[in-house]
Amino acid sequence: MTQRQAALEGRITSAMKHAARREGLDPEVIRQGLARGAVVIPANKGHKGLKPVAIGEGVRVKINANIGTSPHDVSLDKEKAKLAAALQYGADAVMDLSTGGDLDDIRTTLLAQCPAPFGTVPIYQVMTQARSLEEVKGDWFLDMVEHHARQGVDFVTVHCGVTRKAVPLLKNRVTGVVSRGGSFTVAWMRRHGKENPLYEHYDRLLDIARKYDVTLSLGDGLRPGCLADATDKAQLHELKILGDLTKRAWAQGVQVMVEGPGHLPLHAIKKNVRLQQKYCHNAPFYVLGPLVTDVASGYDHIAGAIGGALAATLGAAFLCYVTPAEHLKLPEVEDVIDGVVASRIAAHAADIARGLPGAGDWDLKMSKARRALDWDTQIKLSINPVKARRYREISRAIEDQCTMCGRFCAMKVFDEKFEAE
Amino acid sequence: MTQRQAALEGRITSAMKHAARREGLDPEVIRQGLARGAVVIPANKGHKGLKPVAIGEGVRVKINANIGTSPHDVSLDKEKAKLAAALQYGADAVMDLSTGGDLDDIRTTLLAQCPAPFGTVPIYQVMTQARSLEEVKGDWFLDMVEHHARQGVDFVTVHCGVTRKAVPLLKNRVTGVVSRGGSFTVAWMRRHGKENPLYEHYDRLLDIARKYDVTLSLGDGLRPGCLADATDKAQLHELKILGDLTKRAWAQGVQVMVEGPGHLPLHAIKKNVRLQQKYCHNAPFYVLGPLVTDVASGYDHIAGAIGGALAATLGAAFLCYVTPAEHLKLPEVEDVIDGVVASRIAAHAADIARGLPGAGDWDLKMSKARRALDWDTQIKLSINPVKARRYREISRAIEDQCTMCGRFCAMKVFDEKFEAE
Repeated sequence: MTQRQAALEGRITSAMKHAARREGLDPEVIRQGLARGAVVIPANKGHKGLKPVAIGEGVRVKINANIGTSPHDVSLDKEKAKLAAALQYGADAVMDLSTGGDLDDIRTTLLAQCPAPFGTVPIYQVMTQARSLEEVKGDWFLDMVEHHARQGVDFVTVHCGVTRKAVPLLKNRVTGVVSRGGSFTVAWMRRHGKENPLYEHYDRLLDIARKYDVTLSLGDGLRPGCLADATDKAQLHELKILGDLTKRAWAQGVQVMVEGPGHLPLHAIKKNVRLQQKYCHNAPFYVLGPLVTDVASGYDHIAGAIGGALAATLGAAFLCYVTPAEHLKLPEVEDVIDGVVASRIAAHAADIARGLPGAGDWDLKMSKARRALDWDTQIKLSINPVKARRYREISRAIEDQCTMCGRFCAMKVFDEKFEAE
Repeated sequence: MTQRQAALEGRITSAMKHAARREGLDPEVIRQGLARGAVVIPANKGHKGLKPVAIGEGVRVKINANIGTSPHDVSLDKEKAKLAAALQYGADAVMDLSTGGDLDDIRTTLLAQCPAPFGTVPIYQVMTQARSLEEVKGDWFLDMVEHHARQGVDFVTVHCGVTRKAVPLLKNRVTGVVSRGGSFTVAWMRRHGKENPLYEHYDRLLDIARKYDVTLSLGDGLRPGCLADATDKAQLHELKILGDLTKRAWAQGVQVMVEGPGHLPLHAIKKNVRLQQKYCHNAPFYVLGPLVTDVASGYDHIAGAIGGALAATLGAAFLCYVTPAEHLKLPEVEDVIDGVVASRIAAHAADIARGLPGAGDWDLKMSKARRALDWDTQIKLSINPVKARRYREISRAIEDQCTMCGRFCAMKVFDEKFEAE
């Protein structure tokens, strides 16, 4: 039985209880969210050691960190270090997007070390194993999802909405298809003259998802890869299909999230969130960024934090981090940390803005520590205490001052301690 | 004659022409903005080598970088390097906030090397020269502004709105007064039992400003220093006073900007921008951040970019950068670069969102270069080409790929080059 099926039957599972405790909520609230489809708890029955997390309406905005090898950069040790860093710095979920090395070994090793919900993109493994487009059979798309599900993966990105009808809509795009899974699916459909197997055989996909309680993350394979392509026909065509597929999944007791862009100008974020809510019936919205400019290479975590904070304030439930390496190279551990921290800032800012109860407590504690010039507490409460401590130490600071203001510290002057020194 | 006086007389100055050319606008548009007070061109008659810039309605959102020494960190060479970095990475204006070393020497040296509008906070020099609050005479507040104006400073932060009536409103604040100038003014008023000289003798301040055409940046000495204090009585009391002072400045031909917070929850940004526009009659709004959370120590440039992007989209004209060192230490050159880039991303995202003509051209060029896998052009167009090149080089990349995707590059797969390798 899936979390959704249990919720629909009025049963509160241990996963619901655990997820509710982390939010300080009554498990019944989580159950109702699951039953409505507005909340998911990605929790594969085979993921040992999982600490379940709720994603969706009424809970803290969650963030995902993508890790994984590439054909040019294969090191299990490095991926383990990225996983550890992502978890240490506060990622709520992790996706292994490996495309280089022994993918099964990498995946099962990382999954075993990951108490957070663990996601994958099964089609990447199809791509890495295929020597040509021709040899890829339609069944492979689904078999690979089951393969991952059997290994205990909690959620999978499946590009079910990339259909043959959408292909002509891509004609005038500036950047075409920027999703690897999306582009592979389009190329496969063209070459084989067939429909996307994940769309055509969606009921079989639902059977797999239900069997393992794998949450489907309906991928936006046609997401805009630049501001100029944002909210275009191809994107909206896919989004509408994802809405239909959401309802079909719900009817089969399967948990669903819907993925979103990508690159969006800031003023288009509201429209995009509203359209997703409308077309996809308030299924949790999982956004990649969105990036509010195309030119921030090296700093896309910042462009993504701007878009993510706004999207989440407007209702997006789940932010996929973006690292400074985006558009340039595979992220290193330092990039993972920068990406996680930037996304957490965005998610936390949104929690406060949405009025989530208790969200501002952290800020209040920090502000009281600032007023008291209590540096130890300030550092402990910093979003990245390691960096805050390093900065404070570089600062060659004197007790209750920092090198920014020294004796002109506003806090001290306000207390009329101006001439004390 | 000030730029404002010229504009009111219907005259187009060379500064207006220069500023208009940088925006691709008709100088008459700039003149009209100046006459309405919705635009400023900070341009002290004594600032040799200044390349004038327009700030306000209808022009590109501008960003300011704060540099300067502190009592614990005095190095003119380092400040020169910060100035050079700020300009290289795209700061539109620079403020020297030095509080350590020979302030006049530092200021005049930096000003001589700065073709961008150059701002200061004269009260900092009063603070550094004072051995006690008692010895500070009211005249010093104004004399120091004139001293800076005479040296060629283009704009000055003056905390004119910090009045005796506001002090009781600060009682219940979590972080009291976090502006150094604001706290010094409050402490001085308490100790002397007198009104803020910059408020009491505002007409004399206007005479100074008009004489040199120094733009007044009406400081928000009572800005909130944490989310909990945002949009409180003290803040709004000051803002209303700044609105009155704006009108008085305009009547005397003086150019004015109004400074704003500080720390604001994301959902309060719209209200704050609208209140400033209403109370201050659409004078250009110069915001410090705003920071959308208090806990981002070490990453306040990101918290500030989120707030700044939204504030500027809603109408703020000028973003004061925040660096990763905020709340922890005096920024180093690397912090200056991170701060400038983060603010530029915010400002640029806002220009696009506000529909500023041509703002998205940069993004379109970048996106076409991405589609063409033209890495040289991508790097040249990156917001920080130095970092983008470094990342690309680390990437050990093969010609038209990067280590992120390798042969699974969506662009290539989309072109059905999947099995080419």
